[in-house]
Amino acid sequence: MRLPVELPKAYRLLNHGPTVLVTSAHAGRRNVMAAAWSMPLDFDPPKVIVIIDKSTWTRELVEASGHFALNVPCRALADATLAVGSASGRELMQGAGDDKFARYGLQTFSAGRIDAPLLEGCVGWLECRVIPEPHNEHSYDLFIGEVVAAQADERVFSQGRWHYDDTTDPSLRTLHYVAGGAFFAIGEAFEAKRL
Amino acid sequence: MRLPVELPKAYRLLNHGPTVLVTSAHAGRRNVMAAAWSMPLDFDPPKVIVIIDKSTWTRELVEASGHFALNVPCRALADATLAVGSASGRELMQGAGDDKFARYGLQTFSAGRIDAPLLEGCVGWLECRVIPEPHNEHSYDLFIGEVVAAQADERVFSQGRWHYDDTTDPSLRTLHYVAGGAFFAIGEAFEAKRL
Repeated sequence: MRLPVELPKAYRLLNHGPTVLVTSAHAGRRNVMAAAWSMPLDFDPPKVIVIIDKSTWTRELVEASGHFALNVPCRALADATLAVGSASGRELMQGAGDDKFARYGLQTFSAGRIDAPLLEGCVGWLECRVIPEPHNEHSYDLFIGEVVAAQADERVFSQGRWHYDDTTDPSLRTLHYVAGGAFFAIGEAFEAKRL
Repeated sequence: MRLPVELPKAYRLLNHGPTVLVTSAHAGRRNVMAAAWSMPLDFDPPKVIVIIDKSTWTRELVEASGHFALNVPCRALADATLAVGSASGRELMQGAGDDKFARYGLQTFSAGRIDAPLLEGCVGWLECRVIPEPHNEHSYDLFIGEVVAAQADERVFSQGRWHYDDTTDPSLRTLHYVAGGAFFAIGEAFEAKRL
């Protein structure tokens, strides 16, 4: 079940460095792309950074709508993550006329606070409102978002913490992209000793 | 053994989202702090982002020198990573008169291109020159660096790739910080299927 994550804890969905899926929508069109380059920027109010290349259709939709969502996929979605990170939604629309959700069988549900679809089967979701920073967007493809709502799959994240252990279904572990289709799943949890 | 990483592949040291240790030096003083919030920003020339709070001594040294290094620690350094992420180097200097390297027994070696110490026992190193962006630094504590040299421990990273598998010494796995002393080690490597 999906449960809300209190906003000051939302950064913890990204703190360990997972690859995310960026969803966006505008005027009846929608898209999803993979992004290895995203991270928290602040705690409260929570902010995030994500790099969105000028060539992408996501860029067009985010600039038009002022919103995006970061969806945290798990191993069950690794093939889809690679696929939506490789194909262009714009080309799909111009060709077959379907979008990446239809092409790869990705189910969505509605965000609570923004106009962007959220992806079923992910384990975390951050709904973000763009904080306009034209110089960063233009020079670095760098987008800053304020997180206005967050949710997580309570099987693996609750009370502000990820709960991955030996009993966790391995397909629910977060993805950490390397390159060329190679990923790591997040591994063993442990506590550091205080020196 | 440490081997150079060719610059267009340097982003791969950070792509899977490890927590890093930021080292810096200026005028005979030096410091090290932990940062869960860093990531690649560009491929070639490679750039990185790291968040460095205004209250930190690292901030002072980075602003004065124009350089910083991102050291990628492994599980063997988890306790030290937590320690240098909690203690303030400034307070240590004002108190006992030693720095965090001395206090926690951290050995260093010289960077090739910048004036900052690099940490022995890490598995990756990125030497960075600050690209001045006063608005980002002031408003978001966000620093952009150009990577001018990179190295990696060839036992776990070579030819532009991490090589973690069942035969890897677990103490060499990268660290992914959660909160409150809790970490994940990076886990299983796998290839996604092309849909």
